[in-house]
Amino acid sequence: MRMYDIIQRKKAHEELTEAEIRFLIAGYTMGDIPDYQMAAFAMAVYFNGMTPAETAVLTDAMMHSGDTVDLSRFGTLSVDKHSTGGVGDKTSLIVAPIVSALGGKLAKMSGRGLGHTGGTVDKLESIPGFCTELSAEDFLAQVEQVGVAVIGQSGDLAPADKKLYALRDVTATVDSVPLIASSIMSKKLAAGAHSIVLDVKVGSGAFMKTREDGEALARQMVDIAAACGRQAAALVTNMDIPLGSAVGNAIEVMEAVEILQGGGDRRLRSLCEALAAEMLCLCQGWTPEEAAARVTEAVDSGAAFEQMCRWVSAQGGDAEYLRDLSRFPTAPAYDVCAPADGYIAAMDAERIGIVGVALGAGRAKKEDAIDFAAGIRLLKKTGDAVTAGEPIALLYTNRPEAVEGAKVAYLEAITVSADAPAAQELIYTVVR
Amino acid sequence: MRMYDIIQRKKAHEELTEAEIRFLIAGYTMGDIPDYQMAAFAMAVYFNGMTPAETAVLTDAMMHSGDTVDLSRFGTLSVDKHSTGGVGDKTSLIVAPIVSALGGKLAKMSGRGLGHTGGTVDKLESIPGFCTELSAEDFLAQVEQVGVAVIGQSGDLAPADKKLYALRDVTATVDSVPLIASSIMSKKLAAGAHSIVLDVKVGSGAFMKTREDGEALARQMVDIAAACGRQAAALVTNMDIPLGSAVGNAIEVMEAVEILQGGGDRRLRSLCEALAAEMLCLCQGWTPEEAAARVTEAVDSGAAFEQMCRWVSAQGGDAEYLRDLSRFPTAPAYDVCAPADGYIAAMDAERIGIVGVALGAGRAKKEDAIDFAAGIRLLKKTGDAVTAGEPIALLYTNRPEAVEGAKVAYLEAITVSADAPAAQELIYTVVR
Repeated sequence: MRMYDIIQRKKAHEELTEAEIRFLIAGYTMGDIPDYQMAAFAMAVYFNGMTPAETAVLTDAMMHSGDTVDLSRFGTLSVDKHSTGGVGDKTSLIVAPIVSALGGKLAKMSGRGLGHTGGTVDKLESIPGFCTELSAEDFLAQVEQVGVAVIGQSGDLAPADKKLYALRDVTATVDSVPLIASSIMSKKLAAGAHSIVLDVKVGSGAFMKTREDGEALARQMVDIAAACGRQAAALVTNMDIPLGSAVGNAIEVMEAVEILQGGGDRRLRSLCEALAAEMLCLCQGWTPEEAAARVTEAVDSGAAFEQMCRWVSAQGGDAEYLRDLSRFPTAPAYDVCAPADGYIAAMDAERIGIVGVALGAGRAKKEDAIDFAAGIRLLKKTGDAVTAGEPIALLYTNRPEAVEGAKVAYLEAITVSADAPAAQELIYTVVR
Repeated sequence: MRMYDIIQRKKAHEELTEAEIRFLIAGYTMGDIPDYQMAAFAMAVYFNGMTPAETAVLTDAMMHSGDTVDLSRFGTLSVDKHSTGGVGDKTSLIVAPIVSALGGKLAKMSGRGLGHTGGTVDKLESIPGFCTELSAEDFLAQVEQVGVAVIGQSGDLAPADKKLYALRDVTATVDSVPLIASSIMSKKLAAGAHSIVLDVKVGSGAFMKTREDGEALARQMVDIAAACGRQAAALVTNMDIPLGSAVGNAIEVMEAVEILQGGGDRRLRSLCEALAAEMLCLCQGWTPEEAAARVTEAVDSGAAFEQMCRWVSAQGGDAEYLRDLSRFPTAPAYDVCAPADGYIAAMDAERIGIVGVALGAGRAKKEDAIDFAAGIRLLKKTGDAVTAGEPIALLYTNRPEAVEGAKVAYLEAITVSADAPAAQELIYTVVR
């Protein structure tokens, strides 16, 4: 078998065999297939796509290229959630307590933030004492006892995907639906959950620009899970409006607490409830109606909030901070004011994320430290009426020298217009 | 400027700027742009093509990536010819004396044979004393005095093309018309002739499988020459029937002499006359009718043959071999006989070329030595009637141990059928 022929066949729009795809991934992971051949192959896939069978085998081959987590002790109760990226996305902090309060088992590995996107691990570490490095044994024991544990990426999950993604990133071959689907799913399947709920973001700042593309990606990921003997569902959601009103680390933990205490942003709560309900449909076998009712009840009764406290304590965090948010250290706040009368017509989430990095809430480079107290409170969001001079956002930072630049950048990230924008849906569709 | 954006723009079917293409070639030649980015780019070009303007700039950039030959002293009289490859293609040996006898100036660099294709340099070296290594000064002085000189590739012509071609060869991106056109033309333009006539072979064994593809390649090459301030014309020709009846080295020189003495294969003569006439139209400004008449007259009068002798002598070769072909050393001959009654319906030129290599007439590897006396005489060709047991080819070789295998391979390369095949055109079209 020769890589040359595999490229040639993909270029000619022929369907590759399982043996060819396994040869490709094994050879690339071992370094026998050079980057230049893989780059040509990836570009041919960009143009000619992959069949569902090809995509499933590719995913399976990448999943098995490194370590896999064995969650079989939890049977079908193990469940995971993945978002295709977003600014101010704290849904994991809210969904994990809800689902685990209702019997789901979340053994979750999360990432750190880099660039304009935040990471769940960083957010959790803003709770004093919270430890995101557990041994495999302690990690699984906590899931057994508490129902949820979240740690940083550990082990060598899907190294073939890591290598291929790095190559795609520099050869303009990221935006291929089967390659995105197999990349995400190889990592999620290696992480071991039996069921996976995906939040596929659609909008100007997302991988997927249109609802149709988002649905296609969702469908492929759900089908891959089934082909690999797991189950998945996907929500296709609007990311043109930032989620909730907090961007940062401690500030996002506080917002999660507000939601679990029955307050907070209505759109954020409804997305979290929808994600949690899908997860419970899969792992508990409940109907959508039953799952939705139980999720609402878990939040309204305070059971989900108590579960969050139990979880944080189990990982060494001080749950008193959750019960009294005023304990979180704060940074000085600076107003950003509306430049004109009108409506906020659009917000560029990526640029807002970059403002957060400038304030100290994120990392420009991997080695950078994070200031947990830094962040942004979005006082006015897309669709809100504003009056010239009225505060539309608060910037929290311990870097006074960064404030003026951040204000300018924040204003560049929003569009104020005379007319109210059309109302936007939050959840476009659910792919099951 | 970033290579990433150039790949992205080509992928999105946008037209690249001149600056982008020059950046691409300069960066790749210097090693600043890695193979994997170039491979992704080449595959994007395979799918999205290049505009005439892009192709012309790409060619110009590759042409100027290394040495260029200055033939300006010959004004518009300098003329070159290029064939896109073939087995038994001795047209250069015939065309060069005709055109130079009629005032054209041929300062030609040719290659050596490798694999199934032979090389003009090897064929010329089968004439005792013929020297294909001349200093630049002697080379140009001979063109000035005799009208023609042929040497092996020297200098570093179009190194960007050499590097890119090697990459395309292992990434399944050879078969892109703009990349083939720019590759060929960058080398021919670097070699300096003002006018270039191209013989674009079409058929099962050629790069271009169909007449349409061959015409598209021809058109692109002719347009590139014009865009670069030169002139070109292209004949699109059938390569499904081997050219002439000799495959080898001395045996092809002998066939060239036969043609220049008014004998030999009718199809070979008419292709050579057509190529020579096109070259003279370009370099002398003659009409096609005038050029054709003068070419025929140069052959019939013996002027072209005398010019071949002058040329061979000028390069140190013993022209007495041309005047008395029996002087060439011969190798023992072995018959290949027709396996059945019928007609030769098809001949696989590439496989016949490989038989020649086995007999000692070519090189499997670069370092291999050539036996100038080895070769094949095609006694029966496509369309000819044959009787079972009748000799259809003579194999000349000094390797008796190779004969049995070569006979089997030769018979595998031909198809005998009961019905006469349809007559095939030789020259499909001329692109000017």
